[in-house]
Amino acid sequence: MIKIILDAMGGDNAPYATVAGAVQALEKDKQLYLVLTGRQGDIERELKKYKYDKSRLEIVDCPDVIDMNDSPTEAVKRRQSSLMAAYWLLKKEDDICGMVTAGSTGATIVGGQLILGRIRGIKRPALCPAIPNSRGGVTLLVDCGANAECKSIMLCQFAVLGTAYAKAGFGIKTPKVGLLNNGTEEHKGDPLRQETYKILSEMKGIDFIGNVEGRDIMLGECDVVVADGFSGNIALKSMEGCGKLVLGVLKSEIKSSLSSKIGYLFMRKALKRMRAKLDFDKYGGALLLGLKKPVIKSHGSSKPESVANSIANAASIYRGNLIPAVEELLQSADLDSLSVNQDD
Amino acid sequence: MIKIILDAMGGDNAPYATVAGAVQALEKDKQLYLVLTGRQGDIERELKKYKYDKSRLEIVDCPDVIDMNDSPTEAVKRRQSSLMAAYWLLKKEDDICGMVTAGSTGATIVGGQLILGRIRGIKRPALCPAIPNSRGGVTLLVDCGANAECKSIMLCQFAVLGTAYAKAGFGIKTPKVGLLNNGTEEHKGDPLRQETYKILSEMKGIDFIGNVEGRDIMLGECDVVVADGFSGNIALKSMEGCGKLVLGVLKSEIKSSLSSKIGYLFMRKALKRMRAKLDFDKYGGALLLGLKKPVIKSHGSSKPESVANSIANAASIYRGNLIPAVEELLQSADLDSLSVNQDD
Repeated sequence: MIKIILDAMGGDNAPYATVAGAVQALEKDKQLYLVLTGRQGDIERELKKYKYDKSRLEIVDCPDVIDMNDSPTEAVKRRQSSLMAAYWLLKKEDDICGMVTAGSTGATIVGGQLILGRIRGIKRPALCPAIPNSRGGVTLLVDCGANAECKSIMLCQFAVLGTAYAKAGFGIKTPKVGLLNNGTEEHKGDPLRQETYKILSEMKGIDFIGNVEGRDIMLGECDVVVADGFSGNIALKSMEGCGKLVLGVLKSEIKSSLSSKIGYLFMRKALKRMRAKLDFDKYGGALLLGLKKPVIKSHGSSKPESVANSIANAASIYRGNLIPAVEELLQSADLDSLSVNQDD
Repeated sequence: MIKIILDAMGGDNAPYATVAGAVQALEKDKQLYLVLTGRQGDIERELKKYKYDKSRLEIVDCPDVIDMNDSPTEAVKRRQSSLMAAYWLLKKEDDICGMVTAGSTGATIVGGQLILGRIRGIKRPALCPAIPNSRGGVTLLVDCGANAECKSIMLCQFAVLGTAYAKAGFGIKTPKVGLLNNGTEEHKGDPLRQETYKILSEMKGIDFIGNVEGRDIMLGECDVVVADGFSGNIALKSMEGCGKLVLGVLKSEIKSSLSSKIGYLFMRKALKRMRAKLDFDKYGGALLLGLKKPVIKSHGSSKPESVANSIANAASIYRGNLIPAVEELLQSADLDSLSVNQDD
């Protein structure tokens, strides 16, 4: 059995989407056991709509719910909230393997650091989504928003975290790592990028292929793209916006004439396959990488499918032994020997 | 007559694409007069392929061509090169209204600053592409790569430059300005973003709507998005990459079955309209904003259509009185009074 804990009250569509997602996940993976935190009455009301294996789901009643607008540093003190209670259980119970929440990103990051804790040696956890790429696989973007300001030691650790995730979560043997920059030449970017470039070039266990541009996230050769949380967030949101616009224009053009409507009837399956290939939500959100156990932060607007994908991804990451892989890689990378400024 | 000077040797496809683009532009705009700089023999050989109004085109023979790999600071000294010769003529001849090049971005920026010169009071020029948006118009992204490191005074000036360009180039009466950030809340981002937010909120003549995210460039409400050149470049390239991937997957899915191929026959026109609406190259590249005359930097890989679009855009910007608009707005914004650090 793999036990995953789910913040059943997190996200705009909770508890409907979280409960429906939980039921879907249980149906797909018979090895899965779920712990749902949240208002018991609300959760049970939703659960009544579905048939599911009751022996693999339990509820932990939590009266409090953290709102998207609550201050993360205040929220972290609310032990009775569905999110923080989930973190406390994740920390205390050895047999709980991972967590999923669609709640506040800020509170998820702060709770992860203060309650669950980081992997020994890791300075800061990073948010890491899996983005569909032109090779039919995914590119891991670390960080996409947990750390607006970064130092080179953090970026180098993101390379370690991303490499371990690519191995443990996606079975990539030697993940190629690129540094997100405003050009591919070695000297490009600000002093932070130039310093990080040098250290990454010398790091053991990291297959660093050099600077990459924004277009390379989806079109390039690398499996892991290292970025500070500020520009990583801008890259991710820019791609999401563009994808949404292209699909929106396609839809409106299809509707604009009889001929194209007929064409749509023949092309429906192809367009559905296209959407599936380009789905940013295939893995249900971003992994909060660097904590002692895998935590998946789903979109606030997550639907049942996204929640189910997040749960499946958390289980798959646990099965892939992510945390030991990070620890091992961090040791072999031996950042101390590369004269990296270790100040926090 | 509007006289535009064209670096006929700039770009991967020169002089074929530049000459063909010049001929297309002359055909479309009967008020246009073009000066082409470059190797006279090469240019004449290309020109022979077309019929065009010879009374509206002249060639200035320049034996030297700047390569994409040449150091910009070295390149700027080569007065006999097609790019720098164009800059010198643009500076000296009052009747030349603007310039187009598909050559080296670095050399174009350095040449612009050192030869042509900046508008009085402007600290740094910025690269500004016009990006298609969900409102059927364009969003201007300033800066997208000329300045990897920025101070708040520069970002505030980018707001002035973008506002003037939106008015003069696209007839938008009160352009809405957003600050590119990793979230929309006021406190978001690093100290640079927080400081810039405050100043933009108080600036006269700028309709500042607050922080915007990467997705808002294509989906949002603002006409101008202000960014440092590093994150602006990453946003632009990320969107380009995503657009390319979506269209690529669409193409391969269409080819993948007989049914979808039939669908394509009915949908061909709709897909063509879609492509036209999403064309990043409709205005032929990025305007180098902040110089004494409009300079358009076309993509290195520009085809004849892009070059023609760039020329048409340069003429249109001149007709819209961009430079006086920048000067006026800069004066009314009165950055000196807003206690902005003016150090360079």
